[in-house]
Amino acid sequence: MSLDGKQSDRPRVVIVGAGFGGLEAAKRLAGTPVDVTLIDRRNYHLFQPLLYQVAAAGLSPADIAQPIRGILGRKKNITVLMSRVLGVDAARREVRMEGRRVPYDYLILATGARHAYFGHDAWEHRAPGLKKIDDATEIRRRILTAFEMAEMESDPAEHQRLMTFVVVGGGPTGVEMAGAIAELAKRALARDFRTIDPRQARILLVEAGPRLLSSFPEKLSDFARKALERLGVEVRLNQALTACDAQGVTLSAPEGHEEEADGARIFTRTIIWAAGVQASAAARWIGAKPDRAGRIAVSPDLSVPGHESIFAIGDTALALGPDGKPLPGIAPVAKQQGAYCARLIRDRVAGRATAPFRYRNFGTMATIGRKAAVADFGWLRIKGTLAWLLWGTVHVGFLLGFRNRLSVLLSWIWAYITFQSGARLITGATSGSDG
Amino acid sequence: MSLDGKQSDRPRVVIVGAGFGGLEAAKRLAGTPVDVTLIDRRNYHLFQPLLYQVAAAGLSPADIAQPIRGILGRKKNITVLMSRVLGVDAARREVRMEGRRVPYDYLILATGARHAYFGHDAWEHRAPGLKKIDDATEIRRRILTAFEMAEMESDPAEHQRLMTFVVVGGGPTGVEMAGAIAELAKRALARDFRTIDPRQARILLVEAGPRLLSSFPEKLSDFARKALERLGVEVRLNQALTACDAQGVTLSAPEGHEEEADGARIFTRTIIWAAGVQASAAARWIGAKPDRAGRIAVSPDLSVPGHESIFAIGDTALALGPDGKPLPGIAPVAKQQGAYCARLIRDRVAGRATAPFRYRNFGTMATIGRKAAVADFGWLRIKGTLAWLLWGTVHVGFLLGFRNRLSVLLSWIWAYITFQSGARLITGATSGSDG
Repeated sequence: MSLDGKQSDRPRVVIVGAGFGGLEAAKRLAGTPVDVTLIDRRNYHLFQPLLYQVAAAGLSPADIAQPIRGILGRKKNITVLMSRVLGVDAARREVRMEGRRVPYDYLILATGARHAYFGHDAWEHRAPGLKKIDDATEIRRRILTAFEMAEMESDPAEHQRLMTFVVVGGGPTGVEMAGAIAELAKRALARDFRTIDPRQARILLVEAGPRLLSSFPEKLSDFARKALERLGVEVRLNQALTACDAQGVTLSAPEGHEEEADGARIFTRTIIWAAGVQASAAARWIGAKPDRAGRIAVSPDLSVPGHESIFAIGDTALALGPDGKPLPGIAPVAKQQGAYCARLIRDRVAGRATAPFRYRNFGTMATIGRKAAVADFGWLRIKGTLAWLLWGTVHVGFLLGFRNRLSVLLSWIWAYITFQSGARLITGATSGSDG
Repeated sequence: MSLDGKQSDRPRVVIVGAGFGGLEAAKRLAGTPVDVTLIDRRNYHLFQPLLYQVAAAGLSPADIAQPIRGILGRKKNITVLMSRVLGVDAARREVRMEGRRVPYDYLILATGARHAYFGHDAWEHRAPGLKKIDDATEIRRRILTAFEMAEMESDPAEHQRLMTFVVVGGGPTGVEMAGAIAELAKRALARDFRTIDPRQARILLVEAGPRLLSSFPEKLSDFARKALERLGVEVRLNQALTACDAQGVTLSAPEGHEEEADGARIFTRTIIWAAGVQASAAARWIGAKPDRAGRIAVSPDLSVPGHESIFAIGDTALALGPDGKPLPGIAPVAKQQGAYCARLIRDRVAGRATAPFRYRNFGTMATIGRKAAVADFGWLRIKGTLAWLLWGTVHVGFLLGFRNRLSVLLSWIWAYITFQSGARLITGATSGSDG
């Protein structure tokens, strides 16, 4: 029975998660002879690559989020539900939600990832990650509040803690976040205060490995590091977090690098976590054995072994690339996998065969700041202003919704001209409270 | 001593509150021979007249809020502090904050108003008001979540509760909120759902008095009521709330109108309070005896009787107009009072006399919805499309910041053309939780 009680003979596809993977699958199944139910615990699709700009007070949440119903609500064969999923009954082929079960013929799990703290879950409160809008506005609140409190702080030790910011994790998210905080402190806020000089803020980017952007070629990692250092960011390589509390963090060199600065204690009030992700709980729902990061290992056609009608895509899945290595948890992978699942389902319904999934790598990019970005297309690597313009163009282009594209573009042009940040609001908690 | 420890011989002006009144006073004292400290518990100035559009998912918070430091941070004689004020030591002439005291020669209290529940403070959780950004995003969350849950709700009684919205209070805020929810339900969301028809949502506006917009002429009140009814809003006059709980509200006719529908029980999950305000706690700080609404009665020069260097302006003050009636708690009054205080302080410093404050009434406006607004200029009254265009022009014009003006204008143009709402995000709590 479909949601409105009518019996339907069409195959029923249930998609859990309206991120890049789930949304692409739903869009490609619109208007095809199946009934789709798309379930997400939120009412919007989030363009995660720009989330760090909300955290750095540059963009508003509505600039990078699109209501799912606005995208799909009018497609006749798609039903959108806002709900948490509690589990999957694979034997009865039903998805369990609160007070409701939704039957499926095909199930696509696209539930994404959340942060991992390497066994130190207690760190999460002190060091929030950046996966959701509420994460971003909370980080924004902490960063801006730190400067406001430093303005009034007479105790030099506390003053130093408030003016120190630590970003943990040297992948694209960490690099982008560190660069954005540096630009916020050294440009947008620079002349706004009387007692403090925000340009004196200390911003550290801590990476456990030997270089930033480890998935990029070495030359681009090097460029990123230098660009960050030019912005005034202190880059600490080969250092992992060993402690994280209300007074700051403790860094240690990982095994084999003991000659590096060991046990360095950094006093800070603001820590941002960009160092590890783990998959959603979807593996538990279907009783699949996840890998160390919680991902569901999938077959070449993205189905779950033993469940030929259940597919897992995006960050929650472990799919292998042509070189036998796991595909990275990035948006283009999820989108292509979503499109593939839609095609495979259409093929199955029509009785056709489908080739295995093959990821087409159109390149990856990361930005550091104004006129400094890196782009890796394999045969071609670009850095600097050209990469930055390309990064901007691609991200605006992939944003959903004309209104959001225009809004983000205008925000960027205005920020470029004025050096200001357009969303410097502290919302969500009243002044003086921390965390 | 000023904040940075330097002795200063200039008079020190402390302004508490960066709303319309406090901000205007600060702006007019910029560059004059005084030292100004502006204290607010938030880091932004909020354009309250458009807050209802954030609550109705039309605008984003950043569209109507401007960081105070962005407005004033670079004025050399103005220090901005983000902090709560705990009290005022009138004998020592100091403002008490957490861990700090700020001395003053002149003090302007511009701390505004908050909601009043007529002795039923327990209603606040069920029926949030609309004074702060977090109020607006919470109301937005409740409205949008109600539709999402109704889409999945099989119990008819609960379904009806979810699809019913009650706005309490027939002043401009209540009228604007009811109109905006009606437009959201009947246009923006109309085709987004499968099971429910948002156009069937029931929206009630409850007013204890005999007409809406009681501060406007009767003909304009009448126009507003008809315009709301055309939008599908049920207007209930001469009915006050007697109960408010998780299942809904109970209405009673006030004394003298017992022949009206009595004890009407309306089942609803979403109640918005726009029915009463009370002044901030500023009266308590200085030991002044407040009126019934908590306001500080002020002399014709806006100073507090017995404290010739303490001034109270805006919603927290009770100032009488030329007709002997209290001036209304609206933005133009606060702005003019702020400007007056600045002028008076400059006069005092220069040894000049100042005439008493005289409010110049340039008119008031309220909007109902698309092409329906009312404007009262005393000698001239306008209603309909012309009033609506005027309302829009004035509000965009008075918004602070070119960026915000452009953003709001584009949002309005887009919404006018597409009938969509641009900020339909549910943020702040995960799906399924209420309140």
